[in-house]
Amino acid sequence: MFITFEGGEGSGKTSLIKEVESFFKKQNKKVFLTREPGGSFVAEQIRNIILDNKNEMSPKTEALLFAASRVEHLETVILKKLAEGYLVLCDRFIDSSLAYQGYARGLGFEEVLKINHFASKNMPDYTIYIDSDPQEGLKRALKREKANRLDKESLLFHEKVKAGYQILIKKYPQRYLVVNGQGTMEELIADTLMKLKEIFL
Amino acid sequence: MFITFEGGEGSGKTSLIKEVESFFKKQNKKVFLTREPGGSFVAEQIRNIILDNKNEMSPKTEALLFAASRVEHLETVILKKLAEGYLVLCDRFIDSSLAYQGYARGLGFEEVLKINHFASKNMPDYTIYIDSDPQEGLKRALKREKANRLDKESLLFHEKVKAGYQILIKKYPQRYLVVNGQGTMEELIADTLMKLKEIFL
Repeated sequence: MFITFEGGEGSGKTSLIKEVESFFKKQNKKVFLTREPGGSFVAEQIRNIILDNKNEMSPKTEALLFAASRVEHLETVILKKLAEGYLVLCDRFIDSSLAYQGYARGLGFEEVLKINHFASKNMPDYTIYIDSDPQEGLKRALKREKANRLDKESLLFHEKVKAGYQILIKKYPQRYLVVNGQGTMEELIADTLMKLKEIFL
Repeated sequence: MFITFEGGEGSGKTSLIKEVESFFKKQNKKVFLTREPGGSFVAEQIRNIILDNKNEMSPKTEALLFAASRVEHLETVILKKLAEGYLVLCDRFIDSSLAYQGYARGLGFEEVLKINHFASKNMPDYTIYIDSDPQEGLKRALKREKANRLDKESLLFHEKVKAGYQILIKKYPQRYLVVNGQGTMEELIADTLMKLKEIFL
């Protein structure tokens, strides 16, 4: 079972994943937690290029670097863990490329899917999407010590990212689990665990 | 005018390019010399990941990193120089990806073309291919102070690279200029300049 987490910057993704990890561990599942971009020796080097505030790059370069990092992480880590029977939870995956580069950067879903499907046709079993307010999230993201190159994009960009996810939710209804991130962290966790229990208990 | 240089490791490419640069400069052409992977601030960072001897990576990761480096170099450097009227000479370009990742690594020409055409449909006007002996070339490459991750591949790999180029020569006869790199450096330079004079003088 391969579950990915998606959402805008500052949506509470990182905190939520830890709660979901505990939820599955309490059910005696072997859980492996990882994140994108990065997650392996080479993929972390690619991550540094993508997120470095000193780097400006073409949207196509960005999309290809995400795809390179993804296939490396997938082949060297995720597929091995899945084969060993782990439930893999991944912070961001292909939908981030579709929403960020495909929609917000304007490269198009089909083009971005094409380079990602060159890398791998593996798709998540479930995708937990945190529906949150881009403006609130951006405020939180910029308060972090290490705001990265993507955090620093404009509000308009982050609104486009959200619009991109709205299209993905309609495109992949069978795997998308939309959870409410408009309230407090406690409410977000409660909503997510309730929805997970409906499926997994 | 965009001219690329292709060939195996240790084929004399780097020395030959400098001679070709002089040839065109003597004709009062504005010449810009560059190389792949790399050639721009971000692309050089990608180059370091690709060539670092510490890094092992999936063939697909390698192909995506080359494509990412290529589009960045193309958009930020090559296309600008071409627009300013420069004749651009580039040490390696898309054919290296086709021969190395497409053929020698077994990913297939069509798949590698697909991710490169996502990046850009720009193709070189001429490609100078140095036909040399893989075994001799490899010996020379491994004597360099900084033999990189690709230099260190097996002889079988480098023979496959050469076989890949043979297919490309047949696929793109209109732009390929095959020069003889089986003899001395002086013979290689003489053969190349003779063939360039037939076209450009």
